[in-house]
Amino acid sequence: MSSGRFAADVYAQRLKSAGEAAQHAGLAGLVITPGYDLRYLVGSRAQTFERLTALVLPTGGVPTVVVPRLELASLRESAVPELSLAVRDWVDGEDPYQMVADVLGGPPVATAVTDSMPALHLLPLADVLGVVPVLATDVLRRLRMIKDAAEIDALRKAGAAIDRVHARVPEFLVPGRTEADVAADIARAIVAEGHSEVAFIIVGSGPNGADPHHECSTRELAAGDVVVVDIGGPYEPGYNSDSTRTYSIGEPEPEVAQRYSVLQRAQRAAVDAVRPGVTAEQVDAAARDVLAAEGLADWFVHRTGHGIGLSVHEEPYIVAGNDLPLQEGMAFSVEPGIYFPGHWGARIEDIVIVTSDGAMPVNNRPHELVVVPD
Amino acid sequence: MSSGRFAADVYAQRLKSAGEAAQHAGLAGLVITPGYDLRYLVGSRAQTFERLTALVLPTGGVPTVVVPRLELASLRESAVPELSLAVRDWVDGEDPYQMVADVLGGPPVATAVTDSMPALHLLPLADVLGVVPVLATDVLRRLRMIKDAAEIDALRKAGAAIDRVHARVPEFLVPGRTEADVAADIARAIVAEGHSEVAFIIVGSGPNGADPHHECSTRELAAGDVVVVDIGGPYEPGYNSDSTRTYSIGEPEPEVAQRYSVLQRAQRAAVDAVRPGVTAEQVDAAARDVLAAEGLADWFVHRTGHGIGLSVHEEPYIVAGNDLPLQEGMAFSVEPGIYFPGHWGARIEDIVIVTSDGAMPVNNRPHELVVVPD
Repeated sequence: MSSGRFAADVYAQRLKSAGEAAQHAGLAGLVITPGYDLRYLVGSRAQTFERLTALVLPTGGVPTVVVPRLELASLRESAVPELSLAVRDWVDGEDPYQMVADVLGGPPVATAVTDSMPALHLLPLADVLGVVPVLATDVLRRLRMIKDAAEIDALRKAGAAIDRVHARVPEFLVPGRTEADVAADIARAIVAEGHSEVAFIIVGSGPNGADPHHECSTRELAAGDVVVVDIGGPYEPGYNSDSTRTYSIGEPEPEVAQRYSVLQRAQRAAVDAVRPGVTAEQVDAAARDVLAAEGLADWFVHRTGHGIGLSVHEEPYIVAGNDLPLQEGMAFSVEPGIYFPGHWGARIEDIVIVTSDGAMPVNNRPHELVVVPD
Repeated sequence: MSSGRFAADVYAQRLKSAGEAAQHAGLAGLVITPGYDLRYLVGSRAQTFERLTALVLPTGGVPTVVVPRLELASLRESAVPELSLAVRDWVDGEDPYQMVADVLGGPPVATAVTDSMPALHLLPLADVLGVVPVLATDVLRRLRMIKDAAEIDALRKAGAAIDRVHARVPEFLVPGRTEADVAADIARAIVAEGHSEVAFIIVGSGPNGADPHHECSTRELAAGDVVVVDIGGPYEPGYNSDSTRTYSIGEPEPEVAQRYSVLQRAQRAAVDAVRPGVTAEQVDAAARDVLAAEGLADWFVHRTGHGIGLSVHEEPYIVAGNDLPLQEGMAFSVEPGIYFPGHWGARIEDIVIVTSDGAMPVNNRPHELVVVPD
């Protein structure tokens, strides 16, 4: 059903780059259990948990997949068969951690593991290796953060699809309907507009909009509600959309309109700040400074954005303290919000891709507060 | 929607038992990130990944939830508000690992973590603690393995529901329909019979039945096919069903019938072996010995069973090498299978609960090969 992946040469290039990055970092190798890193490197959507499946990339050695014999068939859909990787299968009773150690070979030096590797596997692996692994994030994030042409194309298609959903949202926002009713309509539209599934739907009306992580409830929409709609999903071969617009049922109160206009300027300022060499935290500060100048900084309670790709949330994080310089090809959300507990909230979110001299948004719906009939 | 949980006193008892077990094991405490352990201990279905949410149970101290401020609202559905736990929220830029260390307090001694804690959190936590944590599995599995009355009731209801689905499977198995067609019917029946959702559906017809982890395909059913149907899902408040029956489209060939009858005896022998004090591997051996006596041991390529509860796969594993003595209240699958690559496969699976003197199956459909019209 959702087994789409890129051609094998895309993964061959990624494996080569990952191996080089690991060598450059002085690592004995990388150990990648199922998750986004595995999907990024070999196109595998394996989801095993308790039995160890791992891609082992030994520095200077042969990339090897350690896999329960039961799961061998699951490799067929991935690029593994075309990539001439070694495969070592194991059955219950054998020690797969020792297999990983054997593939890594040599004396125990630092091995890096994928950030999603569960403690269940990480702790016995550390025992067998004799050293505590480090996170592979530093090695892999440089690869995963910089999107190649195929990935940018996928993100743009996903962005266009979620824009088409937002274009339909006003017709769903009818007073008397519940947030859950609206979410059900949006779920159908997300799939109808080309996504392979729904990843998340936030419909936060009135006071619920003041909780940035509210999903949806049985609250009925009413005239005067400000409604935050934050939606997205994966688009084959698995790159995600994520876009927020804020709606008003009937004309907004003057204070809402005034504060929203500040938020709109803040989001614009952050997008305008994006270009290679600017740091992630400078983009965050660009949004925050606009809000601070109008006394609204205390109501902006989260970071400005997150990277996006195979995962909805990944590097780079656009947050105070992250001095990572932006590079061409990075993709992330710019989504400042303001939240007034018990009253209302608003957020504006686009995914942007860093170009050679600025930012290319993949979302292009108008940024104004969208007024729907009350 | 699916926020069901037990009454708060159930979780209070579990927290008390977990704290006592941790103290008995000489641990500084337990650190539980989102997953089944967290759901077991406080009824929380939180699913945060990149921002740390953790229940910290310091030995002799106050149980504390460390949670991103953004996620505070998600605690409302759990038992946390009724349990008078301490809550320490954090915002981007703060160090939640230091918060965990502060709650644990004292000199660095062994801390145990939930088996699903990702490397992303485990490695920085180990850094801050100054010692590598150990798995909490040994402490928590004793609690989670022994089901209390409410859990047994939930498992029995789930078992009865999946039995009702199996009763309807013959009508779905019509020659010319695809495995995917059948799976879609089964998915609707799983929900219609009371499950909150579908966890997994295996429809393995003909040669596909020889792959124990095949899910479903567009292969069309044909006269003479042997079809493995392995299905299950969670039943509120979240306890899983899991049952396999094998069907034959038209009368089976004599060799199929003969080998299936051996499998049926093997499954029966394993169930009959279950009682307190018998080890998990003895139950596995009981099934394997019957198959070995008929020359079929090499075609039984997986373990005999797995524990079940909030998770579809959990302790105890019924596998060679596991000398864990069974105790009253344990719940697990008994599911030997035989697999002939390229030809056909068969499996029979019931969930059983260990009683004071034997096994109580929660699945009660007939075990014979079910012949449907061709």
